Amino acid sequence: MGAGQRSFWAWGYEDRLPDEASRRDLAEQVGALLGGGPLEERALPRADALKLLEPRVKPLASVPSSAGTRDRAAHTYGKSYRDLVRGLHGDFSSAPDWIAYPETEGHVHALFEHCAREGLAAIPFGGGTSVVGGVEGAAVGSRYRGVVSIDLRAMNRILEVDRVSRAARIQAGALGPHIERELSPHGLTLRHFPQSFEFSTLGGWIATRAGGHYATLYTHIDDLVESVRMMTPRGVFESRRVPASGAGPDPNAWVLGSEGALGIITEAWMRLQDRPRWRATASVHFGEFAGGVTAARLLAQSGLFPSNCRLLDAREAMLHGVSATGKAVLLVGFESADHPLRPWMDRALEIAKGAGGASPEGATFQESLDARGASDTVAWRRAFLDAPYLQSALVTLGVVVDTFETACTWAAFGALHTAVKDAVRAAMKEACGGGLLTCRFTHVYPDGPAPYYTFLGRGRAGDELAQWEHIKKAASEALHANGATITHHHAVGRVHRPWYDRERPEPFGRMLSAAKRAVDPDAILNPGVLVDP
Amino acid sequence: MGAGQRSFWAWGYEDRLPDEASRRDLAEQVGALLGGGPLEERALPRADALKLLEPRVKPLASVPSSAGTRDRAAHTYGKSYRDLVRGLHGDFSSAPDWIAYPETEGHVHALFEHCAREGLAAIPFGGGTSVVGGVEGAAVGSRYRGVVSIDLRAMNRILEVDRVSRAARIQAGALGPHIERELSPHGLTLRHFPQSFEFSTLGGWIATRAGGHYATLYTHIDDLVESVRMMTPRGVFESRRVPASGAGPDPNAWVLGSEGALGIITEAWMRLQDRPRWRATASVHFGEFAGGVTAARLLAQSGLFPSNCRLLDAREAMLHGVSATGKAVLLVGFESADHPLRPWMDRALEIAKGAGGASPEGATFQESLDARGASDTVAWRRAFLDAPYLQSALVTLGVVVDTFETACTWAAFGALHTAVKDAVRAAMKEACGGGLLTCRFTHVYPDGPAPYYTFLGRGRAGDELAQWEHIKKAASEALHANGATITHHHAVGRVHRPWYDRERPEPFGRMLSAAKRAVDPDAILNPGVLVDP
Repeated sequence: MGAGQRSFWAWGYEDRLPDEASRRDLAEQVGALLGGGPLEERALPRADALKLLEPRVKPLASVPSSAGTRDRAAHTYGKSYRDLVRGLHGDFSSAPDWIAYPETEGHVHALFEHCAREGLAAIPFGGGTSVVGGVEGAAVGSRYRGVVSIDLRAMNRILEVDRVSRAARIQAGALGPHIERELSPHGLTLRHFPQSFEFSTLGGWIATRAGGHYATLYTHIDDLVESVRMMTPRGVFESRRVPASGAGPDPNAWVLGSEGALGIITEAWMRLQDRPRWRATASVHFGEFAGGVTAARLLAQSGLFPSNCRLLDAREAMLHGVSATGKAVLLVGFESADHPLRPWMDRALEIAKGAGGASPEGATFQESLDARGASDTVAWRRAFLDAPYLQSALVTLGVVVDTFETACTWAAFGALHTAVKDAVRAAMKEACGGGLLTCRFTHVYPDGPAPYYTFLGRGRAGDELAQWEHIKKAASEALHANGATITHHHAVGRVHRPWYDRERPEPFGRMLSAAKRAVDPDAILNPGVLVDP
Repeated sequence: MGAGQRSFWAWGYEDRLPDEASRRDLAEQVGALLGGGPLEERALPRADALKLLEPRVKPLASVPSSAGTRDRAAHTYGKSYRDLVRGLHGDFSSAPDWIAYPETEGHVHALFEHCAREGLAAIPFGGGTSVVGGVEGAAVGSRYRGVVSIDLRAMNRILEVDRVSRAARIQAGALGPHIERELSPHGLTLRHFPQSFEFSTLGGWIATRAGGHYATLYTHIDDLVESVRMMTPRGVFESRRVPASGAGPDPNAWVLGSEGALGIITEAWMRLQDRPRWRATASVHFGEFAGGVTAARLLAQSGLFPSNCRLLDAREAMLHGVSATGKAVLLVGFESADHPLRPWMDRALEIAKGAGGASPEGATFQESLDARGASDTVAWRRAFLDAPYLQSALVTLGVVVDTFETACTWAAFGALHTAVKDAVRAAMKEACGGGLLTCRFTHVYPDGPAPYYTFLGRGRAGDELAQWEHIKKAASEALHANGATITHHHAVGRVHRPWYDRERPEPFGRMLSAAKRAVDPDAILNPGVLVDP
């Protein structure tokens, strides 16, 4: 947790970016890892040196707004690798003309009317942590007279708690920690912990079908949405608060993943859980990654529903400080508010060992009433939360460093993994002269895993974006060609559009366009994202 | 299981309709239950006496078809109460002009082209078990030159089995028992057992978001669909085979619940499970229904995920031959292919007893490797599968007998249940001079139950449909006014349209219409169902 100011270009709080000394250490370590000498530090961008184009249009007076330089810079991008590089270079050329901070649905309605009347693009903005270009106004300039970023931060209240049904009505602008703080006195939790948790919002999670930290069962925010309320330029889309329904296609599923292209989510009734009282964690090591894959599959198919079932390949385990033994590591965890977990964990470890795994000493099984766990799990959690700061620091060292993620069937994983490794290593060689690629499973399903890859290579000053694009394209093509999805939980945004358009069933694309035209006939909402009108 | 011929008007096989002697017993028993003398038997309709209108149009020669009288009668309706009454009265006035039995997607495509060219309505037909008027051509006559029923029965193969990912590619016309028979040698099961299982098809389940027999976790067919292939008049809608994705709105969710209004589902990759090796069943009795409701809620929120958690009120328990003690009965069950279930069942019974339940002697806990279970569970299962035959028999005795079902939050259930009981009892009194109303929970979710109601009243010859409509309307209004959904798993069809149109978010209705126009511009598909173009 930090308490300072949010960085206008890098991840999170300014004072949590690794400091100069740490960055120098990192330059040496990662330089050695990538081969060759230490990495070279770049100058950090300074807020007082920001140069932005003059706003083309003025804010709407009736809604709280800002056209301040720092605000505009901080709303230009999300937090993808491309965004960090452009921010580091001081390139904020596509900054929005102004930022609106609506406090009511009336404000949102007024903004829609204003944008339609004035020919402005409206970019919904939650926590601004998109890693797929989901919140940027780039490339809309010619068609629109201006760009407004609509930041929901002022609509962040928990409006109602229904203890008996375990649900709460929460405004879309609420950040993760705020939600958990407010629910805690009720003994409840939303239990949705994406890596961006500290800085992302409920509305953003719903709009992008965010993935949480839990490995099975409740993997996406989708599973936690009871009903949703979305303002569209043509009326309010509010679904009924029911636990399930068979009345036509699920209306919530038309809002989930709509990425701000169909409307602005203002609030939702969210399914909650009792706060866990029991936690059990363990880790199992595998000499071969393939053994870990089998264990993860059998666990996913066991009906035990571990809350953690995270498989790290040997490089991933090393990079995250979990294990430097050259073995793959499977982190297994269970949580419950209702019952002790020994029978669950005993059977899970039996399965994992049956697949050739071995427990490192002292890490077989820890059950505790607090958040602590097996040492591998503790190391993992720390590294997981620090990873986005680390990425920002690596960008200042000129490293081309990004992640991509997918999901596929168990049957398809072997060929996919080989193809991805081949394609990305070849592309890194071409673009960076080599590099590092790691893999983990973030989520596992009975029918397949969600593999998550991290790559690192040396950047050349000024060429980084072209280098990144070469690798990203190779990775995306390998995913597409091998039957996998272009994203399991990072969303489509503007970055994944070319592959999403190919992955999406063709008639579905036309249905989606038609649906957009029905509620956003002036095409003001988030142009370029998801679908063309 | 029966082996004879399907009835052209009543449920299931002709030779499984209770015979004359059984119907006479039933007339006395149910007559006594409803007060007053025995019920009067009506004459059964005879196939050789069927009088249908002449077909207006001829079949398409290039696709296997039939315009036979019995075939046309059997494809006129589904199996709702209204359908049974109309069939009993020999009213097949809205029979389709012919029935197509496509054997390939090419045939389906040819049928779409033919219907568009000739101005015909195309009614997709799976097993014909709709209880909401989902497969009938009534009331389309004036706008269309004719009506074709497209029966998918010839497309019923299991095309591929992926053992490692536990999935199979299955054609839409496959019936429940056929699917299970084919998967059994692989040690796999789809584990989807709606009450209509014997006579309904995979495509029908997907099109209507069918509910299975299991009470938690995998409640709807939705949860089992990995990918789907649907022919539309404007191209093939085929989603990618992935365990999960965050790439835009879930395309499968636009097919699930589309009720034949957007296209004809031809096949799907379905998620399977290993066949259960362990089963544990128990029953718990409650003096008050409210105690059972609390127990069901706590079980649904426990994270134990029972495969059965079916609460029967005292009348429901009596009618189904489970218990005549005047107590509510909670049937609890667990199944697993992976592990013995004692820790799960022990904790479940602890929870149920903590809510005031008591186990009847000899029924506390049975764990077995075969399908047998606690005696209450066995009695329930038998009555559950016989219920549709019983309804058909009661219709021949002039009883107004139907079911309706919904889902609501736990917080809303108390007021909803009272409102439903008041409204339906008042309506039964007005329409039938009184009657019987029972309630059970078919499925339970962490945030609410799916209550299922059965009502019975005395019909007056010739007035039954008006009597039924009066009660159905009162029930539906009570559901709508109390925040519940018009259907948890029976679908919308033509019967639920008025309430569905009010339940559906208004912009969603427009999006749905726009989507339909995008793929079915000539509006040939299942007119009247779900949404108007």
